[in-house]
Amino acid sequence: MKKDIKFAAAISALGNPGDRFMSGYKEDLTAGEMFALAAQAGIDGLEFVYGRDVTDENAGEIKGYMDKYGLRCCDVLPNLFGRKEFIKGSISSRYPVTVDKAREEIRRTIDITKRLGGSLVNIWPGQDGYDYPFESDYLKAWELMIEVLQEAADYDPAVRLGLEYKFKEPRVHSYISTVAKSLLLCNAVDRPNVGVILDIGHAILAYENAAESLALAKMFGDRLFLLHINDTRPDWDWDLNVGSVHFLDTLEWLYWADKTGYDGYYTLDIWPARMDTVEAIRESIEWIKAMRRALDRIGGTAIENMLREGNPARAMKIIREAVFR
Amino acid sequence: MKKDIKFAAAISALGNPGDRFMSGYKEDLTAGEMFALAAQAGIDGLEFVYGRDVTDENAGEIKGYMDKYGLRCCDVLPNLFGRKEFIKGSISSRYPVTVDKAREEIRRTIDITKRLGGSLVNIWPGQDGYDYPFESDYLKAWELMIEVLQEAADYDPAVRLGLEYKFKEPRVHSYISTVAKSLLLCNAVDRPNVGVILDIGHAILAYENAAESLALAKMFGDRLFLLHINDTRPDWDWDLNVGSVHFLDTLEWLYWADKTGYDGYYTLDIWPARMDTVEAIRESIEWIKAMRRALDRIGGTAIENMLREGNPARAMKIIREAVFR
Amino acid sequence: MKKDIKFAAAISALGNPGDRFMSGYKEDLTAGEMFALAAQAGIDGLEFVYGRDVTDENAGEIKGYMDKYGLRCCDVLPNLFGRKEFIKGSISSRYPVTVDKAREEIRRTIDITKRLGGSLVNIWPGQDGYDYPFESDYLKAWELMIEVLQEAADYDPAVRLGLEYKFKEPRVHSYISTVAKSLLLCNAVDRPNVGVILDIGHAILAYENAAESLALAKMFGDRLFLLHINDTRPDWDWDLNVGSVHFLDTLEWLYWADKTGYDGYYTLDIWPARMDTVEAIRESIEWIKAMRRALDRIGGTAIENMLREGNPARAMKIIREAVFR
Amino acid sequence: MKKDIKFAAAISALGNPGDRFMSGYKEDLTAGEMFALAAQAGIDGLEFVYGRDVTDENAGEIKGYMDKYGLRCCDVLPNLFGRKEFIKGSISSRYPVTVDKAREEIRRTIDITKRLGGSLVNIWPGQDGYDYPFESDYLKAWELMIEVLQEAADYDPAVRLGLEYKFKEPRVHSYISTVAKSLLLCNAVDRPNVGVILDIGHAILAYENAAESLALAKMFGDRLFLLHINDTRPDWDWDLNVGSVHFLDTLEWLYWADKTGYDGYYTLDIWPARMDTVEAIRESIEWIKAMRRALDRIGGTAIENMLREGNPARAMKIIREAVFR
Repeated sequence: MKKDIKFAAAISALGNPGDRFMSGYKEDLTAGEMFALAAQAGIDGLEFVYGRDVTDENAGEIKGYMDKYGLRCCDVLPNLFGRKEFIKGSISSRYPVTVDKAREEIRRTIDITKRLGGSLVNIWPGQDGYDYPFESDYLKAWELMIEVLQEAADYDPAVRLGLEYKFKEPRVHSYISTVAKSLLLCNAVDRPNVGVILDIGHAILAYENAAESLALAKMFGDRLFLLHINDTRPDWDWDLNVGSVHFLDTLEWLYWADKTGYDGYYTLDIWPARMDTVEAIRESIEWIKAMRRALDRIGGTAIENMLREGNPARAMKIIREAVFR
Repeated sequence: MKKDIKFAAAISALGNPGDRFMSGYKEDLTAGEMFALAAQAGIDGLEFVYGRDVTDENAGEIKGYMDKYGLRCCDVLPNLFGRKEFIKGSISSRYPVTVDKAREEIRRTIDITKRLGGSLVNIWPGQDGYDYPFESDYLKAWELMIEVLQEAADYDPAVRLGLEYKFKEPRVHSYISTVAKSLLLCNAVDRPNVGVILDIGHAILAYENAAESLALAKMFGDRLFLLHINDTRPDWDWDLNVGSVHFLDTLEWLYWADKTGYDGYYTLDIWPARMDTVEAIRESIEWIKAMRRALDRIGGTAIENMLREGNPARAMKIIREAVFR
Repeated sequence: MKKDIKFAAAISALGNPGDRFMSGYKEDLTAGEMFALAAQAGIDGLEFVYGRDVTDENAGEIKGYMDKYGLRCCDVLPNLFGRKEFIKGSISSRYPVTVDKAREEIRRTIDITKRLGGSLVNIWPGQDGYDYPFESDYLKAWELMIEVLQEAADYDPAVRLGLEYKFKEPRVHSYISTVAKSLLLCNAVDRPNVGVILDIGHAILAYENAAESLALAKMFGDRLFLLHINDTRPDWDWDLNVGSVHFLDTLEWLYWADKTGYDGYYTLDIWPARMDTVEAIRESIEWIKAMRRALDRIGGTAIENMLREGNPARAMKIIREAVFR
Repeated sequence: MKKDIKFAAAISALGNPGDRFMSGYKEDLTAGEMFALAAQAGIDGLEFVYGRDVTDENAGEIKGYMDKYGLRCCDVLPNLFGRKEFIKGSISSRYPVTVDKAREEIRRTIDITKRLGGSLVNIWPGQDGYDYPFESDYLKAWELMIEVLQEAADYDPAVRLGLEYKFKEPRVHSYISTVAKSLLLCNAVDRPNVGVILDIGHAILAYENAAESLALAKMFGDRLFLLHINDTRPDWDWDLNVGSVHFLDTLEWLYWADKTGYDGYYTLDIWPARMDTVEAIRESIEWIKAMRRALDRIGGTAIENMLREGNPARAMKIIREAVFR
């Protein structure tokens, strides 16, 4: 396998995670405190949410911390999911004034991404979807999303826009919910700077096999812009530590990330509400490294032979012998 | 069917719902404002969370509102799920000092329930469970829960303690997750004032058929203390409006609630983050009423015949003819 | 709504359903006996599996029955899922000799479809997928499927090929598993006579909202070739009677089928192992009719207003008033 | 860990697996051929289905093969799931004549179990459940099951009856679906020779954590009679090779099997339709052994410390260091 991969983390993973029963499981941290944790976590890059983690006002301060700790900007998300204006949809909203706010939010996020030295904007329109039958006009919503994304892509062709698909949550149904829907949308948007962000947990949620999703993103336009890593039970986006649930699956997507030529960040998106943050991130990275070493012991030729043969029992034998002490 | 059923609502459903992406989708309301909404919602009872909705300090004020609007205390929950002390467990905690806080929380909730004129405490130990393998000693946890519940039951035998089982969330695995686990636990606790609170959505989450769960609660000790009503997709506790997903299922549990002699509140536990609260509650109640009228048109004899015959196509014919205009 | 819709049924639904525990729950029927049942079921069309329901040898006899009972050929499936040659894949097989057999199977199915007066072939490659990690080369499989489907489409451009996507079963993961993957594949195949067959249960399995799937099929190439109707719990393809689980959802996809201009068959794909076949089909049709009448009572203008407003509680009120007696 | 564990296999796993699309993926084998495979599979015991794998007529022949190959009778199942009499239920049937046939089937299975030198009967009433609302009278069904199981238990107190719970399939809802329902039922049956058979895949299906299920079976009467081993995706009973999906989970239930004192067979219940049977069984056993060695490297003290501490990141570190080469 390629010798080195780069890790990043959502800065929110370093902060104070909450849910609908408790707004924060830990303590609120200042930006400086979160950066101090980031510096211990074994990562090179960070993901920010515009307007929450980084604002027009504090961008200089944030950039200062990045320089101080040698951390790069992996990507920035426009806050399409956490502002009251957008609770019934942002880029697919039935209200033109709301759509305009979403356009503005994306443009500002593009600008601030550049200020932070980044070149990737993560579009996760979490509130764009629906909860009930007869709540939405799907045709209008999809047509509008295409138009908004085209305009956003043209605002600065040097900045890439990655669609982070997610099956569900906060809406019962998300519009951009699977890798294939994302790729269909990319095709329709038809801009080279629009692609896909694959979150392993979101793929699992969608009953996708992440390795196949990587292959599809490769095949239909070579559009993988970023990988979010974690693990989960298939029922929900629990954002668990890497390797904590799926083993062969994790080995497999690690292999396919290399096989399809992915060379971006491996960005941790975990939710360590009841664990030490740095410990959870570092251990996730250690599992990745141990698994990649195991793949190296097997070797690319042997793995390609497995794929050619299609004998799961034999594949499991080879893997077992390479993994276990 | 019995002519009248009583409705109640979780007062939280009347407030400002939040999730992990947004702490509040609406505006924070004062107790007075929530009561004013409750008065319009077509309900007779309210459910409170101790320490959040009702405190030792504001209990008098709350009681005043109840009297003003003619609302009764359906039940009160000790806050075992939203305090930082309990994020790794309350009544099953590995830390004796935490368990003591949980015991104290329950006792105080029993006391305040009586101050509000109520007699039912809703035990939902949402943080008692686990997220990862090798995180918990299940035997110790279960043994401890039995002991804590016995002690709580003995604190005031005139107050009933209902275990509100929930499959998951906020933990990946809850201990008290299904109707059968709840009944096993009730048997072990062995106190007449300990029973079960069945939330329809929680039953659906657990892939239970709520009608069968009602039958089991009847059969194994006649232990149903309260019904929480709503609807959901089976993957998550979305707390949707009654009737919005499941139709025959809803008709069936409505029938079985009567058949098993349930005569408590039908307490709405919905999450109307993107709807008018009063409208969502009232419409849920209207669906219940319309469905109960349809059951009346069919009549108990015809329904008992369906159960005897076991011919789903014929049952659907009878129901169709009774439901549709 | 449009006044009349046409119903069809999979002839297998009329026969002897089996599963892995029992090869047949009823008795094996002759073709004549199945047609006699079809004649009572309130349908106009039939779906066949080539090599099982209709063969080169018995095609004349089958056509005779069709003429006798006035039944049309809705569609024919090549048997890519029930022949031992194909248990590890057909149109995506790693073995060229197997792929050739799959090509041949499809061509023969095209031929026999024409003999039966039909013009639609249903491609359901049920064994094309995988069960284990490291079992398959996804890129090769997808590339091969595109090529095979192009060749099949060119064999007779007057015959349409519909891809019946299915999330899973018999493989843990199917390749053609969702509406969006199907549409991506159609785009890549790029032939006007290649489209999608949407089975309501398969959409539910994939956590799709069938109404949105209809919209996507409309939007991305207007490619809906056939609708398979039934109902199911979301965990599995139980092939239940229409209306037995989902109510508002069913109303919604019925509306969207009209809204997107679908005018093909509504083909029943149910599995009435423990019911009278004719009764189960007829009652499914009656539910459809009753639901379409309810939609008519609401009226297209009111429904379009619902979609514009996006207020689920209000929508449920309007629907409730139109549905219930 | 205890040095040696005993493996067994369902003889059906050695035969010709089928599903609803293909009655057999392999070739039908004679008893002799299946035994010859069993002899190569690294197992000591076999599980039989009465009337299918072993009959009153061939019991002598079967016993001969067992002696020849040194294989023991792990358990025998009455065929409550694959006979047409029982398709709408056996021990919970609404038809007294059908219930009598189920009683008879169980008694005969007890008799033949003794002829084979066994002492465990596996009660899996797969058809006892329901598919549709309003299809069943749950109270009557549960009451009847208790009575039938009491009678069966009393027929020969020296033979143990294990209830193999399964969440679903072939029915949409099984009555005996979870470990807790099984234990409730055992309590009600109240016979020392009635207990539980835990199939790992069935536990996963039920969103149970098998380690906790083992703890519950221990705690509520020490009733674990047999362990069926395999792995699966949580949506369905895919009967996959051990270790192919869940890693930490598998390590955890292996530990808890020892911790709770289980010393019976580890009976493989896999479905190797597209693999070499012997290879699939042997490799499943090798994964178990490798995982148990890893647990030994960690050591019981360290694991008990993990459970006491409840720090998943730390636990994953210890496990990672013990597992990986």
